Amino acid sequence: MARHKVVIVGGGFGGLSAAQALGGADVEVTLIDRRNHHLFQPLLYQVATASLSTSEIAWPIRHILRKRHDVTTLLARVTGVDVAGKTVLIADGAPVPYDSLIIATGARHAYFGHDDWEQFAPGLKTLEDATTIRRKLLLAFEAAEREPDPEQRGALLTFVIIGAGPTGVELAGAIVELARETLKGEFRCADPSSARVVLIEAANKVLGNFRPELSEYSLQALRDLGVEVILGEPVEAIDADGLVYGGKRLDAECIIWAAGVQASPAAKWLDVEPDKAGRVKVAPDLSVPAHPEIFVVGDTATIAKADGKPVPGVGDAAKQGGKHAAQVIRARLRGDTTPLPFRYKHAGDLATIGKRAAVIDFGWIRLKGWLAWWVWGIAHIYFLIDTKNRLAVALSWLWIYLSGQRSARLITQGDAETRPPINDVTES
Amino acid sequence: MARHKVVIVGGGFGGLSAAQALGGADVEVTLIDRRNHHLFQPLLYQVATASLSTSEIAWPIRHILRKRHDVTTLLARVTGVDVAGKTVLIADGAPVPYDSLIIATGARHAYFGHDDWEQFAPGLKTLEDATTIRRKLLLAFEAAEREPDPEQRGALLTFVIIGAGPTGVELAGAIVELARETLKGEFRCADPSSARVVLIEAANKVLGNFRPELSEYSLQALRDLGVEVILGEPVEAIDADGLVYGGKRLDAECIIWAAGVQASPAAKWLDVEPDKAGRVKVAPDLSVPAHPEIFVVGDTATIAKADGKPVPGVGDAAKQGGKHAAQVIRARLRGDTTPLPFRYKHAGDLATIGKRAAVIDFGWIRLKGWLAWWVWGIAHIYFLIDTKNRLAVALSWLWIYLSGQRSARLITQGDAETRPPINDVTES
Repeated sequence: MARHKVVIVGGGFGGLSAAQALGGADVEVTLIDRRNHHLFQPLLYQVATASLSTSEIAWPIRHILRKRHDVTTLLARVTGVDVAGKTVLIADGAPVPYDSLIIATGARHAYFGHDDWEQFAPGLKTLEDATTIRRKLLLAFEAAEREPDPEQRGALLTFVIIGAGPTGVELAGAIVELARETLKGEFRCADPSSARVVLIEAANKVLGNFRPELSEYSLQALRDLGVEVILGEPVEAIDADGLVYGGKRLDAECIIWAAGVQASPAAKWLDVEPDKAGRVKVAPDLSVPAHPEIFVVGDTATIAKADGKPVPGVGDAAKQGGKHAAQVIRARLRGDTTPLPFRYKHAGDLATIGKRAAVIDFGWIRLKGWLAWWVWGIAHIYFLIDTKNRLAVALSWLWIYLSGQRSARLITQGDAETRPPINDVTES
Repeated sequence: MARHKVVIVGGGFGGLSAAQALGGADVEVTLIDRRNHHLFQPLLYQVATASLSTSEIAWPIRHILRKRHDVTTLLARVTGVDVAGKTVLIADGAPVPYDSLIIATGARHAYFGHDDWEQFAPGLKTLEDATTIRRKLLLAFEAAEREPDPEQRGALLTFVIIGAGPTGVELAGAIVELARETLKGEFRCADPSSARVVLIEAANKVLGNFRPELSEYSLQALRDLGVEVILGEPVEAIDADGLVYGGKRLDAECIIWAAGVQASPAAKWLDVEPDKAGRVKVAPDLSVPAHPEIFVVGDTATIAKADGKPVPGVGDAAKQGGKHAAQVIRARLRGDTTPLPFRYKHAGDLATIGKRAAVIDFGWIRLKGWLAWWVWGIAHIYFLIDTKNRLAVALSWLWIYLSGQRSARLITQGDAETRPPINDVTES
């Protein structure tokens, strides 16, 4: 008898954890991703701010799963799902048949109906996003060095982050330190330490999902660091030269979007009605009501918790979801049809503000300040995939900590001949 | 009195060494480069073959020169030189005036009049070139995993390097090890160890500039490693599916060009007649005959040695040239007009063949085999710019040496939405 075929779409936290949780089961797994790498997204902001290199936080998916001979990894772009024929459709290849399907394709940033803002305010979800933001940040300082007009130079050295969730807060802190410490003394006309870093949030507090006391501490820590935090002001317009919030105009060269996400198009593939954020509504066991053999996990799915609060869009929720889908499949294969509802366990909240402060809330313990920063660092190194990367990241962080020097200050991307990096200064 | 203004165009080995050799002189230096980073080109092939990450071999130029308060670093694209007005013209900025000008803009790969070959056989000169080749290499294995037809799969797993100078030889060795060691056991359909690596050279030997015995040893070491070396066969045609040499057709997915270079357009800027390779013909002191205040060094210049042999296009020659131009400027400022002809001192030749063999020829000592490999590695770590990178590269190499695992196996570049990486498999 042919073995039960499980197809997993997406090699992020959800998909990878599903594949791992299927280890030893009598199934044949195919993991499909359009990228060859699994990405440790919590540290992506450190690539965007030149602290870590791309390869320090990404690993080839097939390498992670190399010892699992029951798993085939495919680099392919999924174009749809044939739910009747039970196959996943991919670009330029034969459909991949499944008995059970796990969709874990995550989310992209979303602009609340203002898609034209993306060109001016890129978001941070992929390695390419990170190197794009890194380029934009570093080019702003370079352009300021060449700018004779002081007012124009001020706009070039104004950095705006929209959205004060963990990504926005961590980006703001890192950009301040990039300007004040890393770039200190390297420019002759522009003064990097005069850079303004502005964090704009529509809600009335930063880190809105955290406990109020940690949220307040973070706000103070950001202000102490020199970040201008603007709360309760939704952004109304963004263009090439700046943005408008609360009727006020702010001229800025470099704007980063950290405010909202939209789920991947899984609902369209499955022809089901998504929620407002594009997510597939799933049953308590994470399966799709009309198709119990299909599971959707992580940022692509929406499920109500027992207390009615939504499961947060964090990596750990995706991990737990992937593992849960695998467990439901294993139970079914054993003939066990007891309903197995997903129970999200919130492990904790962490965020850093620059390189000397952080907030941590594990429920049973809450920390803030420098001790939290060290716990944050050690926890993140622990969660990296392999020993080589743990050593490399530890070395990079130690270096930044001791010398202030970030080692990945590269302006790259774009073909050298047709699109020299400098052109973008004038285009944008 | 205004200080003497030296403008240096290019922050490679030549330009950087000129800037360094002007330290302490009573001059004002402006270094202009279209890239923000100095690149350690001898290790670029290791980025292309996923051994090192981009930031391990590149440093921001302004960071290297941060303590030199007499140096201003400008990120700008030079568009020409106004030799009468003594200014360097840049895109989107005011012309930069000079009293002395040093041009050190290097070379790009050249296709001997077949520019259409570039799209099928990229060359290796910049970080973007390296990540493009890395992507092409890694995508070939991914496409092979999805290819049901064995013949087609064979073409996908055929890697051709054109040109057997140090870059070609080092690429060939690294690709064999990538296929045999790093990717071993990670694919379910394709067998990476069945990959063919073919090195084609128009001349009758590999490493043509090395002593015959080292050249012969390298040929044997390449063949022992499993590289198919084809000598005395110029390539006649290249297209999307393969190439033709000596009337024979070879189907190959991934072709890399390591055969020829063309100087940057400095001759056009200066309106002087270049040699066949586009290089500016310079006087014995490296100045341009019609403009003694302009110097051209490195791969952009051609100068005859005393014995009539050309100075080789290697990093060390550019370094010596940059230093020499600086010395001539310093002598002139002292009022010393004694002719100061450039004398190139050949320090030696080095090349590695895979991770266990190398050839080294310092004149007074010649080494081959594993000892040469260790000397090669230590020499290269020594030549890196800063301590952090020395540690990082040493860690990466140690890891590859012990585990065979390369840590920069990322397929990146291109915008995720509009140009997913997988598309290139089918396009090329």
